Amino acid sequence: MDIIGEINEKGVVEQRFDLKVESEVVPGILWRPADKLEGIPTILIGHGGTQHKRVENVLGLARRFVRHLGFAAVAIDAPGHGDRITDPDAAAKARSRLERQIAAGPTGRPFEIPESEMGAWAERTRRGRDEWKALLDDLPSVGLTGPYGYWGVSMGTAIGLPFVASEPRISAAVLGLAGLNNRIGGEGFEATARKLQIPILFIYQWDDELMNRESGLALFDAIGSKEKTMHINPGGHVATPLFERDDYDLFFSRHLK
Amino acid sequence: MDIIGEINEKGVVEQRFDLKVESEVVPGILWRPADKLEGIPTILIGHGGTQHKRVENVLGLARRFVRHLGFAAVAIDAPGHGDRITDPDAAAKARSRLERQIAAGPTGRPFEIPESEMGAWAERTRRGRDEWKALLDDLPSVGLTGPYGYWGVSMGTAIGLPFVASEPRISAAVLGLAGLNNRIGGEGFEATARKLQIPILFIYQWDDELMNRESGLALFDAIGSKEKTMHINPGGHVATPLFERDDYDLFFSRHLK
Repeated sequence: MDIIGEINEKGVVEQRFDLKVESEVVPGILWRPADKLEGIPTILIGHGGTQHKRVENVLGLARRFVRHLGFAAVAIDAPGHGDRITDPDAAAKARSRLERQIAAGPTGRPFEIPESEMGAWAERTRRGRDEWKALLDDLPSVGLTGPYGYWGVSMGTAIGLPFVASEPRISAAVLGLAGLNNRIGGEGFEATARKLQIPILFIYQWDDELMNRESGLALFDAIGSKEKTMHINPGGHVATPLFERDDYDLFFSRHLK
Repeated sequence: MDIIGEINEKGVVEQRFDLKVESEVVPGILWRPADKLEGIPTILIGHGGTQHKRVENVLGLARRFVRHLGFAAVAIDAPGHGDRITDPDAAAKARSRLERQIAAGPTGRPFEIPESEMGAWAERTRRGRDEWKALLDDLPSVGLTGPYGYWGVSMGTAIGLPFVASEPRISAAVLGLAGLNNRIGGEGFEATARKLQIPILFIYQWDDELMNRESGLALFDAIGSKEKTMHINPGGHVATPLFERDDYDLFFSRHLK
């Protein structure tokens, strides 16, 4: 990874970098404490659909992991997101479709991806997973040798669940806002969930406009890990209470320190 | 309340007391910091069925609330429990029935109380609720003027849910290991849950031998509070992971401090 810029804000060093994967350039950000780097855990943060590596929620979490836990955090733009948008009209259309579905309120039906887009979704998941793996290969070169955790909900789980299930270097993961019985996770999502063995904190919204209750409970149930906890709160897809962040701290402290 | 004994263990003062309610003597224990009493919150801890006011779990929680949070904690023997057992054979029979049901593993059916015992259960719930109210009346006399929280699962929810739903002096409650569609809560349990307005942390076990999944989810769903969170972990009725205690700390800190 090539560090291409650095700022320091209230003790949090923020470094922009480019990572080459399969001849594509993946732009990312690394947050770390100003004083200590050696031996600190790193949390990989996967953003949601239509978001990017420095969206408010990702930035808030990253700074918090550095300030509260003394960890490092890293985020990259998912394929087709953030600085990697090649078709702005299509990206705007996808965002507006998502916003309309959220505005329409819970339907009781899980979110369905049009059949015509399934190929692109599957390719994005595969590519996203491989990019995280490439990043893990590179993190020791900047002094971050693990342990590693993963945080990602919604699309961050669609990509992140297959990633962490196939990645022995990840020790614990926060997943959520995703379910079975829909196409978000793509083919084999349930079978992949059953392979998980690391501790999982699975967050879910009881009135999610893009999911339904059954599909979230079914995904939690399928997760193969011996230690797994589901946190359910009322409200919609983008209304996870901020106090859950205290639980991410507790969870990662318990498993990565 | 009459303080009848006191010990001091590693900075935690533990006082035994007797509380007179409706011509019965209710024995209780109060735990508090040795140094400071004024203005500290108090957590009422309701034990489970067949348990008592100083069972290991209650004692562990009480000491933790004092040491970690600087709060006071108080527990009383529920009607027919602990020092209030008047028929030891019947108590032993009830305990052994519960142990057999837990040993038999999850049946997928919610726990059923025999029709013949329903009257006694309803009377115990009413009496238990009124005893907590009498205790709240008395706590200011020992310098504990609130805010107050409640922690109680299983029978601690069967008694505690109607208590906190009818008690404006309780600001936040941890409930759990209880469900709808069975007789544990008695008549009107669902309607009472709908009246709740305070923040609730509802803990549940995914493989509870005395409940089933649907009944727990239905109770969480019925809770009327705007802020409510359900934590689900794998395992049986008495296997709630110890790390949930960190969440009780977080929850009560957020709402009572």
